[in-house]
Amino acid sequence: MLRDAILGWFGGQSSSGAAAASVGFQGAALGWEPLAGRRALVTAGPTHEPVDPVRYLGNRSSGLQGYAIAAALVVLGARVTLVSGPVSLADPAGVNVVRVETGLEMERAVRAALPVDIAVCAAAVADWRVDGISGRKLKKRADMAPPVLTLVPNPDILAILSAPGPERPTLVVGFAAETDDVEVNAVAKRTRKGCDWIVANDVSAGTNVMGGPDNRAVLITEDGIERWPLLPKADLARRLAQRIAARFEAPVMASGGERV
Amino acid sequence: MLRDAILGWFGGQSSSGAAAASVGFQGAALGWEPLAGRRALVTAGPTHEPVDPVRYLGNRSSGLQGYAIAAALVVLGARVTLVSGPVSLADPAGVNVVRVETGLEMERAVRAALPVDIAVCAAAVADWRVDGISGRKLKKRADMAPPVLTLVPNPDILAILSAPGPERPTLVVGFAAETDDVEVNAVAKRTRKGCDWIVANDVSAGTNVMGGPDNRAVLITEDGIERWPLLPKADLARRLAQRIAARFEAPVMASGGERV
Repeated sequence: MLRDAILGWFGGQSSSGAAAASVGFQGAALGWEPLAGRRALVTAGPTHEPVDPVRYLGNRSSGLQGYAIAAALVVLGARVTLVSGPVSLADPAGVNVVRVETGLEMERAVRAALPVDIAVCAAAVADWRVDGISGRKLKKRADMAPPVLTLVPNPDILAILSAPGPERPTLVVGFAAETDDVEVNAVAKRTRKGCDWIVANDVSAGTNVMGGPDNRAVLITEDGIERWPLLPKADLARRLAQRIAARFEAPVMASGGERV
Repeated sequence: MLRDAILGWFGGQSSSGAAAASVGFQGAALGWEPLAGRRALVTAGPTHEPVDPVRYLGNRSSGLQGYAIAAALVVLGARVTLVSGPVSLADPAGVNVVRVETGLEMERAVRAALPVDIAVCAAAVADWRVDGISGRKLKKRADMAPPVLTLVPNPDILAILSAPGPERPTLVVGFAAETDDVEVNAVAKRTRKGCDWIVANDVSAGTNVMGGPDNRAVLITEDGIERWPLLPKADLARRLAQRIAARFEAPVMASGGERV
């Protein structure tokens, strides 16, 4: 098979998923696209949950990691829909980008993108939204106490995608941004959500991951824990896309679309 | 005087502040800088008030209007410090930019920039910050009610700058983003804060002012109300800078620094 020839060319072994995926990425330059024919959904960025017409509850996600993953999956041949919260990033080339503001809007856009083979939930969807959004700007008055914001849970998009059913993607990858006990919390999150993999990272003060250029991840799969080094977000994205391609292990030729 | 010569050249009349300022701006291209020797402070953008290490309370200010005002004041010869909340805009040329996140940080940076002749408070400082910021990421737990956010008032930077005292700028300009009764609320705000002018605009849904390219303002001065047309934010900034220059009415030659 051509795939084996390329693996041999790059010194890879088809028995090693990671090696195959690594070669797969390099092979893309030769027109070998291991995810050709696969559909992928990536979520990225924060959500903004309105308090009133001008105020919102948000989070510090820049969207960089999710955008890089969408781009890396396209390079490996996948057809990618990126559902993005409010970020100041340009659309990645070749990606179908759907822009949303709130968690409820992101849920609707994600459901509309199904079915897909691969779902990567890199967005930092607000866990809560504000109960009782004011249609008018809340006024500050010296004679009135500040408002109290009552929160209600947002839809859990990772859990929705992970739930068994005819539209469940073959591979659901979640992200976990933690400030304490990163691995323990991430392993628990994988079980709780029912997703296949979790990419966990430490976003505590000083790590500069939220909004920063680099990321240090721990990948938690059905097979165990892989501790990855500190990497530029684009490199981490490529590594994850390669792991995803290896998981599918059914490379499709880009040119002609025949399975090898 | 050269100023009168330039006014005459452009058909302006020195008795008309607006005409003089308009000429002043055009005159800048000729090296005539009516705000040369003046120091200006501009605040811009939103503030982000942390809830925990990843979440914050924010508002939809893009910073565009304040950045444009800082740039327009520089063109007219002012030395400008721009205290900016978190925005994705490049530093305007020739402006000293101080970047902050929270309302408390903005207050400190503003105080550090004094004394100035002109202060333009275009930032949308959060009226409230969260009481009791969590040092750890708040966890969502199925068995726990969502958190309730208790808010406390942030420092009122416009009122601080407007208060009488040796460091009060000669001209303090506030902004009012309103969704109802724009002029009535803005006139009341001018009195309440003690500032000299208010630039008021309607940010209700559908106007697309917050984050959008255009702005329709009402300028409220000691002399009354001026209703300006819908303008690109850069044009509104130039118009405001011209009005400010007219108010100072003491043009200084840029080349050589001699007063005309």
